[in-house]
Amino acid sequence: MHRSNGDAAHRSKGADRSKGADRPHSSGSDFLQLDIAQAPPGGLADWLARRLRRAISDGRLPLGSTLPATRVLAAELRVSRGVVTEAYQRLVEDGHVVGRGRRGTVVVSVPPTAPAPPAPLGDPSADALFAPSPTDEVFETLRAAPARVDLTPGVPDLAAFPRAAWLRAERAVLAELPAAELGYGDPRGAPALRAAIARWLARNRGIAASPDEVLVVNGTAQALVLAGEALHRDGYGAMAVEEPGSLGVRLHIARTRLATPPVPVDEEGVRVDVLRELGVRAALLTPAHQFPTGVVLSGERRRALMRWAEATGGLVFEDDYDAEHRYDRPPVPALRSVLPEQVCYTGSVSKLLAPALRVGWVLAPPRLHAAMVAAKRHADLGNPVLPQLVLARLMDSGELERQLRQLRLRHRRRRDAMVAALRELVPEAVVHGAAAGLHLMVTLEGPYGDVDDTRLAARVLERGVKTHPLSWHRQRPGPPGLVLGYAARTPTDIAEGIGELARALDGR
Amino acid sequence: MHRSNGDAAHRSKGADRSKGADRPHSSGSDFLQLDIAQAPPGGLADWLARRLRRAISDGRLPLGSTLPATRVLAAELRVSRGVVTEAYQRLVEDGHVVGRGRRGTVVVSVPPTAPAPPAPLGDPSADALFAPSPTDEVFETLRAAPARVDLTPGVPDLAAFPRAAWLRAERAVLAELPAAELGYGDPRGAPALRAAIARWLARNRGIAASPDEVLVVNGTAQALVLAGEALHRDGYGAMAVEEPGSLGVRLHIARTRLATPPVPVDEEGVRVDVLRELGVRAALLTPAHQFPTGVVLSGERRRALMRWAEATGGLVFEDDYDAEHRYDRPPVPALRSVLPEQVCYTGSVSKLLAPALRVGWVLAPPRLHAAMVAAKRHADLGNPVLPQLVLARLMDSGELERQLRQLRLRHRRRRDAMVAALRELVPEAVVHGAAAGLHLMVTLEGPYGDVDDTRLAARVLERGVKTHPLSWHRQRPGPPGLVLGYAARTPTDIAEGIGELARALDGR
Repeated sequence: MHRSNGDAAHRSKGADRSKGADRPHSSGSDFLQLDIAQAPPGGLADWLARRLRRAISDGRLPLGSTLPATRVLAAELRVSRGVVTEAYQRLVEDGHVVGRGRRGTVVVSVPPTAPAPPAPLGDPSADALFAPSPTDEVFETLRAAPARVDLTPGVPDLAAFPRAAWLRAERAVLAELPAAELGYGDPRGAPALRAAIARWLARNRGIAASPDEVLVVNGTAQALVLAGEALHRDGYGAMAVEEPGSLGVRLHIARTRLATPPVPVDEEGVRVDVLRELGVRAALLTPAHQFPTGVVLSGERRRALMRWAEATGGLVFEDDYDAEHRYDRPPVPALRSVLPEQVCYTGSVSKLLAPALRVGWVLAPPRLHAAMVAAKRHADLGNPVLPQLVLARLMDSGELERQLRQLRLRHRRRRDAMVAALRELVPEAVVHGAAAGLHLMVTLEGPYGDVDDTRLAARVLERGVKTHPLSWHRQRPGPPGLVLGYAARTPTDIAEGIGELARALDGR
Repeated sequence: MHRSNGDAAHRSKGADRSKGADRPHSSGSDFLQLDIAQAPPGGLADWLARRLRRAISDGRLPLGSTLPATRVLAAELRVSRGVVTEAYQRLVEDGHVVGRGRRGTVVVSVPPTAPAPPAPLGDPSADALFAPSPTDEVFETLRAAPARVDLTPGVPDLAAFPRAAWLRAERAVLAELPAAELGYGDPRGAPALRAAIARWLARNRGIAASPDEVLVVNGTAQALVLAGEALHRDGYGAMAVEEPGSLGVRLHIARTRLATPPVPVDEEGVRVDVLRELGVRAALLTPAHQFPTGVVLSGERRRALMRWAEATGGLVFEDDYDAEHRYDRPPVPALRSVLPEQVCYTGSVSKLLAPALRVGWVLAPPRLHAAMVAAKRHADLGNPVLPQLVLARLMDSGELERQLRQLRLRHRRRRDAMVAALRELVPEAVVHGAAAGLHLMVTLEGPYGDVDDTRLAARVLERGVKTHPLSWHRQRPGPPGLVLGYAARTPTDIAEGIGELARALDGR
């Protein structure tokens, strides 16, 4: 060990270009033009991560190139190897590089260089984008808008996606898959995945379900459409939704030709008394972690909801979208586990692994099961089989639980960073639902109580930061606010984003 | 070489169990109890393949086990290595084993042992299964029915799926995928795949389309539903279909609340004059290889169809389901290539790679594009991203063209085997559409002209062979017949299946 350090120190002594030239660039750091003397005392890893980000964004470290070995770079900079490892780890968390084992650390994405240009005026300007009545395309438009920091909710830490484990599982699947399973399959999903999901739900959500009850879908959005269409065929005219509640979910239900009457949510969860008065026969709820407030449905309300369902034959569509992500509280049992006859339960891997996998599941109540299977068959004949079998392996091998444990640690750090930044920079913001999930809801009070949050979100976007205005997720007037996702962002990005929010508030 | 032969011959001499026991089973063949003396002269490879199938089905070669090295087995049996390689190749074509390079040849599926039991009487009995008016579940029920030989149409040779190439491409995708692409994506599909599809269609189908026109879908079934719903919203009441024409397609369209008036098909293709008289504004056609007749739309009819579309603003939904599979004729240009404004073009990889991948594409005419994108967003927010990017690589690397060339050779051999078996065993059967595709249509004439083909299919199924009665694919009365898929079956299975068909006809 000491010896190799000595070697390295010797190799990197001075700035002897001719010596440097003997080595391929990717193995050394001369091309990075790093001058350790510029580094602030005590902030070595930060400084190095910033310099590396810049080298990636200005093309000195192009996509696909390999970072210098930590040992080599540490020796060349005469810093401890831990400093370099820490800096590389930040880039990994950004999603800019990934570790490739013996191939080293490889650049996989380029950070935006300068502050993003203000969103093009004209169409869509930031104000047009955050128009009062958003349409189906709004989330794509917002994704396409240029920005430095994306604090929109709903996405986990995508840099943590277990690429190696996925590939290992895919290899095993391809090695053992009987050729016949590459033909047309069961529209309910691959038997292996339905069994794995049943076991997963038993272990993680306390739900007892047989694989035959499981319907594999392309995600919660598809589950909603299949249920909405089944209900519409059964003569249902409406599915009540929470107020505030997810805009995306509401837009999706509306297209199935069901009305979406709002039911207010208070600190105990959805107001079951109002639900009863509405006289609707179906309601979409997020009992374990209400979106966007983060409220947990209280025991009293759960009992009231059961009485409502049993008395009226009412149907609860339970969107268990991020129940696995909890930090400071015990797990909340799924409604499905106590009310299987009345609850259509749905979940997905979008918040556990990645939305791009497009895999979710539904446990329909007996009366809806056949209709939803028929709707799935009609929609697409079933999900693609390979990702289903890969996911089944990750569930059965414990890999998915490992992923969840790792995500919890990373997400909790990021949650803490956002809460701290808000407390310091936007003390007037009231934080809601920090105990679980992937996002915070903040409401603005006092001097900011009269802010138009869609205009605020537009100003914040013009400063290069994406958020959701709380009023997007409302059908009724209410206090202004923002919904801020933290799970997918690094503490550095989060602090920068909240800083821009504070400046936008002052500059309004 | 000679030396190793000598060794092997020595090792396997006699039935010395104690010696045999020193070696792990998978490395030798003692456990196969092969006695070369039983082999018929000249039929060594056949004999060996049969013995190996039996060893797989009775568990001596369990799933996941490795066949003896060809060199070792050839030496032990004192046959040429070519005999063993040929026998192994037959098992590969069956889909029972796959080559794993240095890992050897591995068992991946178990052949049914004895003749399958007759389909359980009661529900679904073979007769119930082939009831006159089949429902949406009929294809799943038929798939689930036990049988020795499956001659149903619509599936390519699944044993030829390029597992190694798929895994290589997936590794490359996971190595380079920016983390952000694991989030919610473009509902039209991954840009890389839309570009690859545009290039594929230009190279293989003479279609000039920009990637922006391409909509990635879960397969032709989903394309139909998205189009059907878009048309229904536009006030269309019907989509004409070919007669005879695909039952599955008709059932799918019907669920989108569009009527499916039949337009007869003759030896020049669809009767455009009848289409004109019907006064419908939309028609689903299979111009390159009509299903099930295999007829190619003639030049005169193509011109008549263009005149109809231009005069009436009529919309043609072009289902190009197996246009790449042709054996004895030149390619047929897609209608889309000459009529982009009037044609909604769709294709998929179901017949090129595997239906279980659930990937297809749509080129909508300008007037339908936005509505179909909106319908896809609503249906599932878009296809899973990883299989899209893997497929894009296989298309761009030329791997998919290699696959297609290999499939053509294998399918053609199987087509020839089926035509020969029919000529020999069922001379009364008239064969249609043998020049291309994955199936044959046979009509029964002379003594069999009055057969009820659903009852015939039931009798054939009771003999362990699955087929489609032609009347499934008719809305109007017509000569009896069967639709017989050959692409997914080995010449041996095909001969066996046609033999049972002949016996069923005699025994009626």
